[in-house]
Amino acid sequence: MGETVKYILDEAEMPTQWYNIVPDLPAPPPPPLHPGTHEPVGPEDLAPLFPMALILQEVSSDSYIDIPGEVLDVYRQWRPSPLYRARRLEKALDTPAKIYYKYEGTSPAGSHKPNTAVPQAFYNAQEGIKKMTTETGAGQWGSALAYATALFGIELEVWQVAASFEQKPYRKSMMEIWGATVHSSPSPLTAAGRAILEDDPNSPGSLGIAISEAVEVAAQTEDIRYALGSVLNHVLLHQTVIGEEALLQLEKAGDTPDVLIGCVGGGSNFAGLSFPFLREKMAGNMAPVVRAIEPAACPSMTRGVYTYDFGDTAGMTPLMKMHTLGHDFVPDPIHAGGLRYHGMSPLLSHIYELGLVEAVAIDQTECFEGALQFARTEGIVPAPEPSHAIAGAIREALACKETGEEKVILTAVCGHGHFDLAAYDRFLSGDIEDHEYPEGKVSEALSHLPSW
Amino acid sequence: MGETVKYILDEAEMPTQWYNIVPDLPAPPPPPLHPGTHEPVGPEDLAPLFPMALILQEVSSDSYIDIPGEVLDVYRQWRPSPLYRARRLEKALDTPAKIYYKYEGTSPAGSHKPNTAVPQAFYNAQEGIKKMTTETGAGQWGSALAYATALFGIELEVWQVAASFEQKPYRKSMMEIWGATVHSSPSPLTAAGRAILEDDPNSPGSLGIAISEAVEVAAQTEDIRYALGSVLNHVLLHQTVIGEEALLQLEKAGDTPDVLIGCVGGGSNFAGLSFPFLREKMAGNMAPVVRAIEPAACPSMTRGVYTYDFGDTAGMTPLMKMHTLGHDFVPDPIHAGGLRYHGMSPLLSHIYELGLVEAVAIDQTECFEGALQFARTEGIVPAPEPSHAIAGAIREALACKETGEEKVILTAVCGHGHFDLAAYDRFLSGDIEDHEYPEGKVSEALSHLPSW
Repeated sequence: MGETVKYILDEAEMPTQWYNIVPDLPAPPPPPLHPGTHEPVGPEDLAPLFPMALILQEVSSDSYIDIPGEVLDVYRQWRPSPLYRARRLEKALDTPAKIYYKYEGTSPAGSHKPNTAVPQAFYNAQEGIKKMTTETGAGQWGSALAYATALFGIELEVWQVAASFEQKPYRKSMMEIWGATVHSSPSPLTAAGRAILEDDPNSPGSLGIAISEAVEVAAQTEDIRYALGSVLNHVLLHQTVIGEEALLQLEKAGDTPDVLIGCVGGGSNFAGLSFPFLREKMAGNMAPVVRAIEPAACPSMTRGVYTYDFGDTAGMTPLMKMHTLGHDFVPDPIHAGGLRYHGMSPLLSHIYELGLVEAVAIDQTECFEGALQFARTEGIVPAPEPSHAIAGAIREALACKETGEEKVILTAVCGHGHFDLAAYDRFLSGDIEDHEYPEGKVSEALSHLPSW
Repeated sequence: MGETVKYILDEAEMPTQWYNIVPDLPAPPPPPLHPGTHEPVGPEDLAPLFPMALILQEVSSDSYIDIPGEVLDVYRQWRPSPLYRARRLEKALDTPAKIYYKYEGTSPAGSHKPNTAVPQAFYNAQEGIKKMTTETGAGQWGSALAYATALFGIELEVWQVAASFEQKPYRKSMMEIWGATVHSSPSPLTAAGRAILEDDPNSPGSLGIAISEAVEVAAQTEDIRYALGSVLNHVLLHQTVIGEEALLQLEKAGDTPDVLIGCVGGGSNFAGLSFPFLREKMAGNMAPVVRAIEPAACPSMTRGVYTYDFGDTAGMTPLMKMHTLGHDFVPDPIHAGGLRYHGMSPLLSHIYELGLVEAVAIDQTECFEGALQFARTEGIVPAPEPSHAIAGAIREALACKETGEEKVILTAVCGHGHFDLAAYDRFLSGDIEDHEYPEGKVSEALSHLPSW
């Protein structure tokens, strides 16, 4: 029936610092390298792209970084976000496990992305930047940054993956409502885009291509900066507000997690949830299993190679050591557009190599089934991305049913699915299928890895 | 810049009673009449349609009605909802006025409708009902009731206005995600639907027609009940949690409202916000102007006749004394589908007649302009319905700029616009126009008023 168990925090309990996991790790992550010299890139190499405050966060060795008051002011619009106990789902699964979920869907953009979009816009504004560029796939990141730049008076140009630009026009409308200009990528506006279009005038685009375009424009123009919505250290850093709040909320619930389960695309939502718990794990205060769920169609952690690769298709970014399926690998179209990225955050890749987290790939039909069960019990319609986390949590809860273990499972629903109803529509009509692991395409892409 | 001013409440401060304004009014509202006998309808007349607990609320003379624990349990999923001070909008308008807004968009269905959908599903479940019917226009109400019935294990059949069924397929998906069955209305499934289809096989439908269909099915089947998302006393009653919370929150903000502004379709959101403040006004504790904003294309309060009319097109409901444009008036298609109803809540109509509230009609382009300015300053994309309230608040704030008055304005954003991006898209492309008041169509419809 109607039982809701919600753990809220006072505004006064909202985190005032972001947590930087790097200094706590037993070994430092390998540095990004300049593609020409193979030397570690320095802050000056990144200066054409990012404001200095973000570059310093990217390489910081401080464990905690103060959240500026102006950012807290905006965070307070929807933070602290609620933590729920999924009692109705537990009952439906008939599991002895306890399932908690942190919900980020109440932000104005409907996902966790504003947690980093807001500080990124703030630091750019603070350094006098009047215009930014970015890429977006399904549009979660583009709309979050459009929201944040609108608040801080910054102009925004977004390159949106052509397939999504055509198929999901409403996300574009959302970005435009907040004042952003949106281009279909590949576009004739950049050298990177023109090169792709010359090869294939009907290219559906990819996140890697869109990054190349947005980076190119920012790099070539003195007073334009670029923003990335995942992958980089400073992005993961900003998302740690999720985990810090969840830690406090679970404490109020009187529970300690046995298993943390999150979805991974570039890694920011997963890192945001898990890093504060990994701190406690490394300090010996708890011992949760920490599990990343990735889509079977784009399994960079479970099937990718751990090596230096580009973050974009055209090879304009520094080389980053990460789990990658090859920078020119174009994943099959699946509905969790936010998880369709060829690589994985270098920091999260490193932590995976250290054995602090594990990874599992799940097919999209299992994820949609889990999402539907979640919606009908918990009442929240999740986006396709967190449906991976939900499917992972359901697997764990059903395993507990077998063993009788009363495990405490913590997961994160990083966005609502109100923009993804066409995908649900197709699932309900039986028109969604699984994608086999694209062995051949990955081998081909991996044969193009940069030499270094 | 980023300044957010939010007033939250502890769960312990969430209202535990609904407020019934009827006993506090200087005169009782005229009763609904049986269309055949012209005698007041009694509880037994309504029993085929509603569970007895709701019928008793419909006619209650108690000032306060306890909210059942099971309902509070679900309310707590998103309540108490936040009250914001719109500082960034105030700055953009350069007004000395203070603008506060109560935000209901964080509910699982994205609007205020679950405030009544949840108790309606609960009382039906409590009386053993296994199946319910309802109508929906754009889909806000249908999806809210689908959410609520999913939680309480009740089957739901929804008749959705054909024009919306075709043009807004995603709302249908949302209802289906929560397990409801959705029919396009007029449908061949009912006598009312077949009669309309015989006249016009391509009828776009209307809310009045869809009500006829849902009522017909419930009335003819012993164990099926019907639910209405606005208009009736018990629906308005359930929505008073909005105003009770806002009253407390404004008190915490240290302010007393000079002007309350809400949008009206059937009246439930407006009543929910304003009734607790009207109680304080009638008690002499404050003296706010209370203003309803309706769409110029469907101005039942400002241009309708105050008389007995049917709530539906086919004439199956009791006769209700209300402001009406005629039960077979079909409003022009505007984007605020939730405000396209020929009548107005009888209780709110009565209160309007008593002079306790005033009404203004605003065209949709002014509403979209206000919504865009709101989105770009406050960061929240409102649904087209509350864009009417926002446009009204902006008018008032700009008037204050002229006079220099530091008025305290309270308004309500009763839902987010994430499902209405196609409408914004058309507005941004210059493809939205105002609709002249349809004098001829209304005269025609008013000539069909029932005799009584």
